[in-house]
Amino acid sequence: MKDFEERNPLNWLFLPESVSKDDNVVATYVLETSPDTDILSKSFAIAVEQSTGTWIEVPAETPELRKHHMAKVIGIYELPFVEDTPPTDFRHFLIKIAFPLVNFGAQFPMLLTTVVGNISSAGKIKLVDLEFPLDFLKSMPGPKFGIQGIRDLLGVYDRPLLNNMIKPCTGFPPEVGAKLFYEVASGGVDIVKDDELLANPPFNPIEKRVKSYMEMAKRVYEETGNKVLYTVNITDEPDKLIENAYKAIEAGANALMINFLTAGFSSLKALAENKDINVPILGHPDFGGAISSSPWHGIGSPLLLGKFPRIAGADLIILLSPYGKFPVLRDRYLQTARAMTSPLETIKQTFPMPAGGMYPGIVEATLKDLGTDCIISAGGAIHGHPMGPRAGAKALRQAIEAYMNGIPIEEAGKEHPELNSALKAWGYWKGGERKLFDLL
Amino acid sequence: MKDFEERNPLNWLFLPESVSKDDNVVATYVLETSPDTDILSKSFAIAVEQSTGTWIEVPAETPELRKHHMAKVIGIYELPFVEDTPPTDFRHFLIKIAFPLVNFGAQFPMLLTTVVGNISSAGKIKLVDLEFPLDFLKSMPGPKFGIQGIRDLLGVYDRPLLNNMIKPCTGFPPEVGAKLFYEVASGGVDIVKDDELLANPPFNPIEKRVKSYMEMAKRVYEETGNKVLYTVNITDEPDKLIENAYKAIEAGANALMINFLTAGFSSLKALAENKDINVPILGHPDFGGAISSSPWHGIGSPLLLGKFPRIAGADLIILLSPYGKFPVLRDRYLQTARAMTSPLETIKQTFPMPAGGMYPGIVEATLKDLGTDCIISAGGAIHGHPMGPRAGAKALRQAIEAYMNGIPIEEAGKEHPELNSALKAWGYWKGGERKLFDLL
Repeated sequence: MKDFEERNPLNWLFLPESVSKDDNVVATYVLETSPDTDILSKSFAIAVEQSTGTWIEVPAETPELRKHHMAKVIGIYELPFVEDTPPTDFRHFLIKIAFPLVNFGAQFPMLLTTVVGNISSAGKIKLVDLEFPLDFLKSMPGPKFGIQGIRDLLGVYDRPLLNNMIKPCTGFPPEVGAKLFYEVASGGVDIVKDDELLANPPFNPIEKRVKSYMEMAKRVYEETGNKVLYTVNITDEPDKLIENAYKAIEAGANALMINFLTAGFSSLKALAENKDINVPILGHPDFGGAISSSPWHGIGSPLLLGKFPRIAGADLIILLSPYGKFPVLRDRYLQTARAMTSPLETIKQTFPMPAGGMYPGIVEATLKDLGTDCIISAGGAIHGHPMGPRAGAKALRQAIEAYMNGIPIEEAGKEHPELNSALKAWGYWKGGERKLFDLL
Repeated sequence: MKDFEERNPLNWLFLPESVSKDDNVVATYVLETSPDTDILSKSFAIAVEQSTGTWIEVPAETPELRKHHMAKVIGIYELPFVEDTPPTDFRHFLIKIAFPLVNFGAQFPMLLTTVVGNISSAGKIKLVDLEFPLDFLKSMPGPKFGIQGIRDLLGVYDRPLLNNMIKPCTGFPPEVGAKLFYEVASGGVDIVKDDELLANPPFNPIEKRVKSYMEMAKRVYEETGNKVLYTVNITDEPDKLIENAYKAIEAGANALMINFLTAGFSSLKALAENKDINVPILGHPDFGGAISSSPWHGIGSPLLLGKFPRIAGADLIILLSPYGKFPVLRDRYLQTARAMTSPLETIKQTFPMPAGGMYPGIVEATLKDLGTDCIISAGGAIHGHPMGPRAGAKALRQAIEAYMNGIPIEEAGKEHPELNSALKAWGYWKGGERKLFDLL
């Protein structure tokens, strides 16, 4: 009798109030199940499998051990929330499970193993949120600089920033990149970043690239008074990564960049925690689609590409735009941006960098969505501008300025040949027609 | 610019960590929207509409006022959780909104107005959960007795309890009911409850009924040593309700009953908070389907019929069985039962009373699901038993005993004529075939 009672899934379904938010990481999943699946048992099985137990009771899994270490199911919600007749084809659930923090601690590998490890092979289940206790967040570095720190470094407070990724992506020597750097920086970009595909190849090694680019940054500052951050891509294996960072900083780099998914959150975290690295870190989300794109598998993008890299320490994160070249759902884009900027206990705000087919004609829609604490990030629209890269940068600054002054982009185009040329080349989209406050 | 920034829905989307669980009631809703609905704006509009604002900005809705009183959207989850192409027919979301407790306080009418008031007319939206802060729960009475207290009153600790609702439901005088009471109590029921349709009509007034039933209870105790609780239905308008309670207790009632949805949660709460009322209160959920049955409207049954009446003070609550005469989804039934029994801060456990077509043949399935801390509640299967009400009660006690001893119901039937007769009349269902621990 007692055994049955303890193994009864009902006894492991708890009200949310019953778990301490200080001691547990609360995971939210969406699931699709067959109509004959018992969701209570399935949720319980997930909680057991990902904490203390397995498919059969084992002697050492004592009640005492379970009490402190077994995960608890604290929410099961069906959509639609039917009360009598369930759907006959499949059923959709959102479930919430509280995992005792003591089981894995404030680190990424064991966190991921716990919340999305083996169960990632347990059918249609996707992790869509994690709520962290304060102790966990306090152990995470978060951004060293964040939005405010980046603005302080650049001395720019009254407008969105402009970032440029050098194009072509890779295959060129430092001298070629330096020339492009000089052009775009002269045109008014605040940040220049490497493409994610260029890190430390023999034809363009980090030290040489940093030196030649930073020389251009210095020249532009002397000529215009504009400061420019250069985020050099140091992505590499863990041991090489820190070495690359030191090399880059010694060569004069004032910012770093890492492809955080291919390098791993732990590597981003290691950079952010390192006291000898005192420059902003840009996080690039390539590989994200492999983990987030499926509706029923992997990890949702707001968590994977927003909250995770933010707590791991990214000061700036590339965010694929729904108005550009990738098929990105606007909802998810907005949620991901907000995961970077919403208040989060002790963790600073990360600068969202909308990118991926950014051009002047979608600046207005982007800023209406995200507000002005974001970094317009363009590659092709600058280096492929009909009048050249410097004009490309200028056109984007003009688009930003028009928005800040409340001037319609087509009006601003009449005043500025660079912007006019861009609008003629790629058109513009009045994203502003989209209502931002839909009434009930 | 500033106005836009403040009115930008993105700025009102928060991470769950950003709201204090001590100061907010967190509501969970499921929604169905059209594909062209902006879910961020819709969620924001709900939060605004149900706290400080309206469809247009008004001068006195200052940033300071908003900061402390506007509700915050802290979660938007789509099912399926798509990342690029949204469904074209409709979209399903679960959203979470945190409402500042200070806006409404620990009372039901303003709580309900806040979390499900006007927005109940805002399309397909159903409230499916509320998470209460400790301060709120501390202000709620919860059950005076709860599971442990009821067991103490009856002196029964080692088995599920048995309850009987007198049938016919209404239309008879106290003497008729008293005879039936004597029969079923002699047969072994622990609790006798009125039907929800009988309260205080002229042909069967509370005082007379209580007196004649309690006389029977006394007689049975003298004859058998078995204690019986009689939950007299005192449902009435608020002012009459307390009067009825006093009348019943003065007449010797050792328990009360209220139809908590038609009388209102506040009335149940008033009974539970009243220091002169020191008997258990049974809550009857009739009218529940009117509020919970729609998949996309109203309030989900685990909250409406489990958590709400529990915190309002019901010691026992009738719970419609999925194995009986009503179309009830087993999942929701289990969740509702668990809402009554899961740890909930300072609030005691409420006894679930599975009912609605209960008969011996489904006792095993019921107890396998709910465990032994429940009250098997039967009306027709007792009063309509082929051998009479006393035998009907005995048959159910025999079914319970069989389960407790691990004896299959069909085996037990061979030993007991009353049980055998019931099994022959209505059959039995091996609910136990349903797996309770579905592996991944």
